[in-house]
Amino acid sequence: MPYRDGMRARSEGRRAEIVRAALEAIAERGYRGASLAAVAERVGLTQQGLLHHFPTKEALLVAVLKERDQWDAVPDTQWRVDLLTALVEYNSMRPGIIQTFSALLGESVTEGHPAREYFTDRYTRVRANMAAVLRTEYGDRLPNGLTPERTAPLLVAVMDGLQYQWLLDPESVDMPEAFRDFLHLLGEKPDRS
Amino acid sequence: MPYRDGMRARSEGRRAEIVRAALEAIAERGYRGASLAAVAERVGLTQQGLLHHFPTKEALLVAVLKERDQWDAVPDTQWRVDLLTALVEYNSMRPGIIQTFSALLGESVTEGHPAREYFTDRYTRVRANMAAVLRTEYGDRLPNGLTPERTAPLLVAVMDGLQYQWLLDPESVDMPEAFRDFLHLLGEKPDRS
Repeated sequence: MPYRDGMRARSEGRRAEIVRAALEAIAERGYRGASLAAVAERVGLTQQGLLHHFPTKEALLVAVLKERDQWDAVPDTQWRVDLLTALVEYNSMRPGIIQTFSALLGESVTEGHPAREYFTDRYTRVRANMAAVLRTEYGDRLPNGLTPERTAPLLVAVMDGLQYQWLLDPESVDMPEAFRDFLHLLGEKPDRS
Repeated sequence: MPYRDGMRARSEGRRAEIVRAALEAIAERGYRGASLAAVAERVGLTQQGLLHHFPTKEALLVAVLKERDQWDAVPDTQWRVDLLTALVEYNSMRPGIIQTFSALLGESVTEGHPAREYFTDRYTRVRANMAAVLRTEYGDRLPNGLTPERTAPLLVAVMDGLQYQWLLDPESVDMPEAFRDFLHLLGEKPDRS
């Protein structure tokens, strides 16, 4: 590998490590509570060394949020209702990541939070995507008579709200089962177990 | 008013003022981001003066959470589905308070957060109350076939999740309308407007 490519690969590996450490620090303390010094320490860098990769705390947050977007990296047009169930099941196996983003979502409603615009834009996009998914599945009206556009915010709200209940009390809240119950409300008779 | 009673009334008034200031500070910066010094400044006290009323930041948080419980002060046995709609409508007129508690809920899932136990216990209680409300309204099965116990976590999740979407983008999300849509999913044909 030529010298410059090797440098770049090492630098990218370092950045990925720092982003992972930031995810953990935010899960533990929130964004405002997570210090750059603590993130640097996790990866064995000085704060100065970390600033070489991310010049500000906000730049690191942007990288964390980009990383988050990659996990949803099913192209927008290819989502289906059954993939949503699979996503919720997958989420229930990665509480650390869900904790990071539930903490960030909560903080994002405080004044001047740097993640606010990200979440506002994200919800606009996700509601539109979910409406399209529901339209593909059900047409212009769901069995209960609601339009896909009126149903989409409820679908998103249930996913977010269940995450908080589950993070706080994983023994009492079966997140995938509850989400399947919600899908039954939308269009099918529920499992009577 | 006897001297001692006057002292006590003044002290209680002061405490209420401090709690209100703490609510605002948490809405703006979250609990970890809100400093006692900032709360003290809002009410024209020194930090030392504030510590006379609340010896620790956690003691102040406990008072904030107690204050929160008083707003839901309908006795548990007297909740009805139509009161829930009224509650969501009322909530949509007080974004500041909803912001405080959405921020706290988000933070509560981070490590060792002092509000975590409060929220865990609260959700256990609220799910049980909501199941009782649904049983009173619908009996042992809702029209869609789910039990009240399986429906309650969804009801709570929708309320919480809609609050985040609405706080981030009040122009795009009509929280009371969305909540009524959810109630229609539970048991009625929706309004086709």
